[in-house]
Amino acid sequence: MSAFNIVDIIKHKRDGEELSSAQIRWFINAYTAGEIADEQASALLMAIFWRGMTSRELNEWTDAMIESGERLDLSSISVPTADKHSTGGVGDKVSLVLAPLVAACGIADPMLSGRGLGHTGGTLDKLEAIEGFRANLSAEEMVSVLGEVGCVICAAGPSLAPADRKLYALRDVTGTVESIPLIASSIMSKKIAEGTEALVLDVKVGNGAFMKTLSSARELAERMVEIGTAEGVKTSALLTDMETPLGRTAGNALEVAESIEALDGGGPDDLREITLALADEMLDLAGVQADPQAALGNGTAKEKFEAMVAAQGGDLSQPLPKASARRSVTASATGYVRRLDAHGVGIGAWRLGAGRSRKEDPVSEVAGIVCLKKEGDPVEEGEAVLELHAQDESRFAAAEEALKGAFEIAAEPPEPRPLIIEKIHA
Amino acid sequence: MSAFNIVDIIKHKRDGEELSSAQIRWFINAYTAGEIADEQASALLMAIFWRGMTSRELNEWTDAMIESGERLDLSSISVPTADKHSTGGVGDKVSLVLAPLVAACGIADPMLSGRGLGHTGGTLDKLEAIEGFRANLSAEEMVSVLGEVGCVICAAGPSLAPADRKLYALRDVTGTVESIPLIASSIMSKKIAEGTEALVLDVKVGNGAFMKTLSSARELAERMVEIGTAEGVKTSALLTDMETPLGRTAGNALEVAESIEALDGGGPDDLREITLALADEMLDLAGVQADPQAALGNGTAKEKFEAMVAAQGGDLSQPLPKASARRSVTASATGYVRRLDAHGVGIGAWRLGAGRSRKEDPVSEVAGIVCLKKEGDPVEEGEAVLELHAQDESRFAAAEEALKGAFEIAAEPPEPRPLIIEKIHA
Repeated sequence: MSAFNIVDIIKHKRDGEELSSAQIRWFINAYTAGEIADEQASALLMAIFWRGMTSRELNEWTDAMIESGERLDLSSISVPTADKHSTGGVGDKVSLVLAPLVAACGIADPMLSGRGLGHTGGTLDKLEAIEGFRANLSAEEMVSVLGEVGCVICAAGPSLAPADRKLYALRDVTGTVESIPLIASSIMSKKIAEGTEALVLDVKVGNGAFMKTLSSARELAERMVEIGTAEGVKTSALLTDMETPLGRTAGNALEVAESIEALDGGGPDDLREITLALADEMLDLAGVQADPQAALGNGTAKEKFEAMVAAQGGDLSQPLPKASARRSVTASATGYVRRLDAHGVGIGAWRLGAGRSRKEDPVSEVAGIVCLKKEGDPVEEGEAVLELHAQDESRFAAAEEALKGAFEIAAEPPEPRPLIIEKIHA
Repeated sequence: MSAFNIVDIIKHKRDGEELSSAQIRWFINAYTAGEIADEQASALLMAIFWRGMTSRELNEWTDAMIESGERLDLSSISVPTADKHSTGGVGDKVSLVLAPLVAACGIADPMLSGRGLGHTGGTLDKLEAIEGFRANLSAEEMVSVLGEVGCVICAAGPSLAPADRKLYALRDVTGTVESIPLIASSIMSKKIAEGTEALVLDVKVGNGAFMKTLSSARELAERMVEIGTAEGVKTSALLTDMETPLGRTAGNALEVAESIEALDGGGPDDLREITLALADEMLDLAGVQADPQAALGNGTAKEKFEAMVAAQGGDLSQPLPKASARRSVTASATGYVRRLDAHGVGIGAWRLGAGRSRKEDPVSEVAGIVCLKKEGDPVEEGEAVLELHAQDESRFAAAEEALKGAFEIAAEPPEPRPLIIEKIHA
């Protein structure tokens, strides 16, 4: 006989009562061990979706998820560690620039990342567009690359937060993904298990983000900062705009190329602005004084990127793969790009083959969209606004359909919006 | 590929949207056919627990449950049909008296009943205390007994509302039993599938009932009346008191004996009052003019009971089984029984062996409690208030523990409460 009855725990939460620490730890351990049926766990998740979690519950829940596996041991790393996590958006290639950038500034960034579901691939899918790049490293390899280079971007191994893997798979099929405490615990359990001392969260807000409203993004950010702080990790969050794509590209190889431009000191202004803001925040939390802007100009960030890619088996001397099929989407009038929706561009890129629907699906390295014009840019009738890239022409019709209504040309440019909306501190 | 996606349906209900008729019918059919995973169905059930169901949703949901199986064909029955369902309470043996009583009045009562979980057995467990009584009849046998005698009390076969069987088993382990629309649909799907033309619901209210408050009982009654009416079954409900046990006995053979007393025109007043009120309501809905009070006095109801039991293999010439172990619980003061809780007596009877915890468990035929005194009765210090019956003495200690605080002796008798609180009509 076990100490707790799962039906009592479900009813307790269903009726709006706070779960005890012992109930939470028992549930997470027993579910991870396969001792609780999926139909009971999903009923509890829906009750949590409904009733939410108190701070104490959420901190205990996340801690139990972390304790369900191992924490990486970064004690061999001699410099301060810091990492960043983004809730994801269209064209968000910041990790590829930021990890080498902060490494160049004297921080070690142990970035565990994922493959994406949805619009485009995740950070690992993007890096895998580089010939030979290996995302799956053992814990020893990861710590070795981190110590040697100062940054590493790889997949989380199965020993990190196994409870999250199992719960996430269940949430995915039971309509319980979109719960702020469950999202917060899922993200934070993996990030804390990777062993970082400091963590900056980039919580995206807008039509191309998971959080569509400022209030929901703020709530998610606050809860994640609270969890990190409770776990002894210096944590803060930036709320950043995701109404329109970040940078000019959405797609795997396309985003690697744009990231390399940024590492060379170029690239689009928005990508540069957000990357520097996140770098400042990481340096601040880690207590390191450095000038990240200089590191983007003087080649040191680029060198870290090259060293990291090489240490993970990638060969940057090989050209990035390019799409053989391309097509332009043109402006129907002369004026300004008044609106260019991240959501529409994301769906378009997905239909071109850049993203996946199921985690087993492959992604196309070359598929994606180049935003030749961005919000506020002047454009003439018939001029190309977007350039679609795909492996073959058959993809274009569905993507064009998704892009109808995704942008708007008007006589006046839009009011500028701030890219960095708000900071959330502990 | 199916027409619907279960995750979309879960999210729809979770977000407070109304499900379409097509979504509901697809879910009930696909779940019954084993095409939807239990963890998805339980998440939907918890979302329904949270968000409730509109009248349209509930009527469609119940109708789909009925359509998941067969409806009994009662076209061979020449007299009006009517039935009663009780939500269950301590000492509720009304069915044993009522079905033969209305049969004696010219109605045919096709009473499908169940075995009980909790305090005491269900109606079938009680009848099985009679030597040879068979509760499991084929549909043909059931209709034959009904046509011949005018009443039958038996178990629902597996072809009736199979969706309910599957959903109830899932609700039981996922903390989703106590939802008023889910309770209403479960009860009504079985009762409507049995083919009755009229149905009276006895919704119990009080500490010994599933519905503890008048408002929840009223809501359940209203929703069941609404479903029945939508299905073309003439339906009404009585809300009746379950703060104290009904009659003087709680236990299987004990309740059969008390029912036979009532059929002989005797028995406790409260049992007689509620049985006659339900009979009047059934006759009224069925449009039959008769005098049920006379049928309890003149032996015609008793004859129907004897004929039904005989038709189902029971032998009333054999004495009912009796407990070899008995113990009295006495009054600690002289005065009146001011309070005698149905809940406490129910738990006591359960601990004596009258009820079961799991549906595989056997029940004791002889175990139970006789209430020698009831609320309002005068009592002297040291006089027996309750008599405990069990198969062996070892059961008494736990039952006595449960009965502590279950009754109260005071200088003044309590204010009388009405037994029949309210009627709910379509």
